[in-house]
Amino acid sequence: MKLERTHKIFNPPVRTLMGPGPSDIHPRVSAALAKPVIGHLDPEFSNLMEDIKDLLRYAFQTKNDVTFPVSAPGSMGMEICFANLVEPGDKVIICRNGVFGNRMEENVKRMRGEAVMVDDEWGRAVDPQKLEEALKANPDAKIVAFVHAETSTGASSDGKTLAALAKQYGCLTIVDTVTSLGGSELRVDEWGLSAVYSGSQKCLSAPPGISPVTFSADAIEKIKNRKTPVQSWFGDINLVLSYWTGSGKRSYHHTAPVNAMYSLHEALLMLAEEGIEKAWQRHKDHHLQLKQGLENLGMQFIVPEAERLSQLNAVTIPEDKNEMKIRSGLLQKYNLEIGAGLGPLAGKIWRIGLMGHSCNQKNVTLCTEALADLLQNA
Amino acid sequence: MKLERTHKIFNPPVRTLMGPGPSDIHPRVSAALAKPVIGHLDPEFSNLMEDIKDLLRYAFQTKNDVTFPVSAPGSMGMEICFANLVEPGDKVIICRNGVFGNRMEENVKRMRGEAVMVDDEWGRAVDPQKLEEALKANPDAKIVAFVHAETSTGASSDGKTLAALAKQYGCLTIVDTVTSLGGSELRVDEWGLSAVYSGSQKCLSAPPGISPVTFSADAIEKIKNRKTPVQSWFGDINLVLSYWTGSGKRSYHHTAPVNAMYSLHEALLMLAEEGIEKAWQRHKDHHLQLKQGLENLGMQFIVPEAERLSQLNAVTIPEDKNEMKIRSGLLQKYNLEIGAGLGPLAGKIWRIGLMGHSCNQKNVTLCTEALADLLQNA
Repeated sequence: MKLERTHKIFNPPVRTLMGPGPSDIHPRVSAALAKPVIGHLDPEFSNLMEDIKDLLRYAFQTKNDVTFPVSAPGSMGMEICFANLVEPGDKVIICRNGVFGNRMEENVKRMRGEAVMVDDEWGRAVDPQKLEEALKANPDAKIVAFVHAETSTGASSDGKTLAALAKQYGCLTIVDTVTSLGGSELRVDEWGLSAVYSGSQKCLSAPPGISPVTFSADAIEKIKNRKTPVQSWFGDINLVLSYWTGSGKRSYHHTAPVNAMYSLHEALLMLAEEGIEKAWQRHKDHHLQLKQGLENLGMQFIVPEAERLSQLNAVTIPEDKNEMKIRSGLLQKYNLEIGAGLGPLAGKIWRIGLMGHSCNQKNVTLCTEALADLLQNA
Repeated sequence: MKLERTHKIFNPPVRTLMGPGPSDIHPRVSAALAKPVIGHLDPEFSNLMEDIKDLLRYAFQTKNDVTFPVSAPGSMGMEICFANLVEPGDKVIICRNGVFGNRMEENVKRMRGEAVMVDDEWGRAVDPQKLEEALKANPDAKIVAFVHAETSTGASSDGKTLAALAKQYGCLTIVDTVTSLGGSELRVDEWGLSAVYSGSQKCLSAPPGISPVTFSADAIEKIKNRKTPVQSWFGDINLVLSYWTGSGKRSYHHTAPVNAMYSLHEALLMLAEEGIEKAWQRHKDHHLQLKQGLENLGMQFIVPEAERLSQLNAVTIPEDKNEMKIRSGLLQKYNLEIGAGLGPLAGKIWRIGLMGHSCNQKNVTLCTEALADLLQNA
């Protein structure tokens, strides 16, 4: 049995990544990736795992004991939150204002829970009043799920207010912070979030493939009191914890992606060196610069200013312009990636990311100038 | 909210990995890991994905269209096979001769299937006669699952015969090839295997974290005709395929671990350069050398010669020796990792891997000499 294609060593182009993720990786983080692999049960790796958990707690601003990186992408981090918290028959209120609310609904259905959808316009924050109405109308709801930073639209929702409402009506929360972690204010403990997942490849600027998660004590209590087993063996928190709990008596669950953990560690270390509040501010500052540049080129933000994310800038495409041609032009001429619209916004917007290591003055200038060139000449 | 621990850059020790995986990584594969990240929807990445699929088909010896790397460790590859093939109520015959048969049972239960266990002694191959009896006794069984190469014991089962029996009784097969892929004879098409999963970190010698899988046309047909949705959104083959199918109309499913895919590609390229049969033979040759050395030191293989894997050597610990002390000594004095026993074999055996890039003359000699030293002096 032979090969069908001709093969050679792959040398990727050197892009500047200003799409919805992955973001650019700092040389320190790349260097960490290529360090020698060690066993996933090596005492040195156990030590690294403890460091990662501590650094993740800092990034999430939490003291949650159960805080660790899932060995799979953010979509699996999402699934792990739903698979562990939702039991068959559980009613889950899902605030939907973009693509990832749809995905939450899919998750609840597959866990045989009942999804109650609360819809907001794409490009707007979740409306707390609508959530409160849904909570009143569904006193048997057990969980509220929402996306803190909607990557498909660039809208930021008020996590603190939504979580407080959920708590007031006796619900736990599942919160998507894939795009917010490290890029905009997120305070898991102060806001009282219950189960929170994120991704390595957005504002943390580690390579894609890992999903940091954190669970509050009351979320863990619900998981421990389940009447049915968690549907996923790989994602069963009870089993994963025996591996991630450290403290000398770790037992084998799966083989962790050792090198990916090196790079996540280095990226988290750099975040701690910068300071989390300073990282949030950096995203805001460069967003304001980029905003100026984009508006000068005639683009409009689809999200109202007060609900706008710094790290994901969703803007309209100037009329009569061929969006695909311009996006390809940016890639070919400038090696610059920006993102297209998703779902109903496909072809209507661009999504320009300013995430983690990609969020700097050089990139703001490059992006503005390259867009100016192609809007005029493409 | 502050950090609890003091943090610094992590520099792993330079180990020689001769445990049950991960195995050592070739410098070409490490270098690939650190290449610049590109977007997971970049046209260059699409091209790389097609290359990886072709190289994986070669490694698996299959023409299966649905052959791709799952963006998560082997345990998730296993779960994806069970989640897609098993519907609630489906009867699955599981041949169990080690730890991973237990895990298959857990998977079937969580998919609400019915598991029929066929037990063989740990350290022995699966007995085809027992499987045939189970198939006769369970004419309603739909799937037979077995582990081709049991990493917990070092036993190799006769995949060809077991699959032929399953087919004769109208069953599909789910086959664990985590430790066999690239290290010992495996011919997915010729043997007629239906759903097959593996891992990146064993005989392929890529970093841990990716699970190559392949599905036959009849497996895909069963998946397409399911009456119930696949329990896992992340693992639903119908959705994953829209991303991995390539051919210009790829749609977003999850963000692939881009750098891990670079390294898998490079490792598969090296396997193709060597030639798959030559790689199998290399594992066999070095195994015979290691066997000689270990037997000279008074160790015995727990698996009969005809059922023995080359890449995983499970041997008894010489009497009166403190296994933990010797294993730690190997790590401290020689930076050499070997594996401990799992489950009922914990404390009773060592598992010495000769996998992929770790399988070479230098390592055979090192391991034999280092063990000789510590058995005498520890």
